[in-house]
Amino acid sequence: MRELLRDARVRSSERAFVVEGPRAVAAALDRDARFEAVYLGPRADVAFPELTARLAASGAPVSSLRDGVLERVGTTRTPQPILAVAPMPVVSRDVLARDGLVLVGVALSDPGNVGTILRSAEAAGAAAILLGPGSVDAYNPKVVRSSAGAIFGIPVVDAVSEGWSAVEALDALGELGRQRLGAAARTGTPYPEVDFRRPTAIVLGNEAHGLGDDITAHLEGHVTIPMGGPAESLNVAMAASVLCFESARQRS
Amino acid sequence: MRELLRDARVRSSERAFVVEGPRAVAAALDRDARFEAVYLGPRADVAFPELTARLAASGAPVSSLRDGVLERVGTTRTPQPILAVAPMPVVSRDVLARDGLVLVGVALSDPGNVGTILRSAEAAGAAAILLGPGSVDAYNPKVVRSSAGAIFGIPVVDAVSEGWSAVEALDALGELGRQRLGAAARTGTPYPEVDFRRPTAIVLGNEAHGLGDDITAHLEGHVTIPMGGPAESLNVAMAASVLCFESARQRS
Repeated sequence: MRELLRDARVRSSERAFVVEGPRAVAAALDRDARFEAVYLGPRADVAFPELTARLAASGAPVSSLRDGVLERVGTTRTPQPILAVAPMPVVSRDVLARDGLVLVGVALSDPGNVGTILRSAEAAGAAAILLGPGSVDAYNPKVVRSSAGAIFGIPVVDAVSEGWSAVEALDALGELGRQRLGAAARTGTPYPEVDFRRPTAIVLGNEAHGLGDDITAHLEGHVTIPMGGPAESLNVAMAASVLCFESARQRS
Repeated sequence: MRELLRDARVRSSERAFVVEGPRAVAAALDRDARFEAVYLGPRADVAFPELTARLAASGAPVSSLRDGVLERVGTTRTPQPILAVAPMPVVSRDVLARDGLVLVGVALSDPGNVGTILRSAEAAGAAAILLGPGSVDAYNPKVVRSSAGAIFGIPVVDAVSEGWSAVEALDALGELGRQRLGAAARTGTPYPEVDFRRPTAIVLGNEAHGLGDDITAHLEGHVTIPMGGPAESLNVAMAASVLCFESARQRS
């Protein structure tokens, strides 16, 4: 468990990840997650009777842990009374052809941002997320936590597993007929003027460095959220949220 | 410095707060911040020559600190080589009458969320933020950091300093002719149907508990960001971003 939480290579070889805390576990069940194992701290069944009943009914093997064990395993500041191990979903690249927006993360490094992007994308009805090489692992515990269940609700395609470089991933999206637009702080098309009813992929760059020239050469254009005043840029998760919901608005 | 960073009461009595790190300090200068004092770690002048020159030119008193001092003072995981002390701006309640959206935070408890809301609100050209009783202090170091300079770019009215309860703050906004709309995960007016060209205040509730009945009784209605699938709610900062930019879109 400790290794699953702390080491992306262990998650990858075990094809499993950990969901921490009653809220996240409940949000996973809301999305029909199946757990390989559930661990309850002392008195978790008393504190969360409804959730522990749901977990028992789900057929997942539930174990109770002694006082002090979860504290040594979990990654959250406040120890969580419930941890659950979930198998990594098998996501086919075919989801990229689904109806709805695709978001592409190129070297997104902040797990809180990636989790928040998953949450907004799921809520806005996006088709999928594609994470390029150098992005944080989607099953990192901070991503899982900040996704608030969305890691179970929206397919995440891992470019590395597909054998794609970032440029090859963009090529694949282009072959599916998607317009590929980089999110840019300035000089792109103002987002209300973008036609999101067309199949679209929005490409989000690294929080500090944006999109490189190699990526830009594989885009049809850029989209910008017009900003006033001295603001240099938006947080990438905020920008993604605004664009996801503009897509949903235009398509509704 | 340690107390200014760690204790809201000290910030309040000293009327000062701390900006941590070269990016945040540069973003503050971009917004014409005046610092009372600047502290540089060893070699900060070599690592950030342009910024240290700007700081010197700004007239702020600059001191150099010995190795290991900043590490003991700062609140960030990675010690920051530059810290600066800024006076708290004096914000009059008159800013609430300005053109543009007002966001009201009722008991917002997460500093990262509040900072992100400041950042989006500034970038979207909102008029002001009003923080109600029980909200995190706007000059908390995590708020300052995640605001990316916006704490210097958008006025933040503190209801407590104005002697207002949350309900009295809403009354004040109503007297200014603003429609007061609570952000709700369900059952409100879909946000594209809200007329943001009217003077508007969007009221954001606590991350876990939402808006209480006492608040709801002082609203004209609710606004909802339609969500698909099993998503229960959006992160409050993402919801605020979407609403701020919808307001900007309608008003542009």
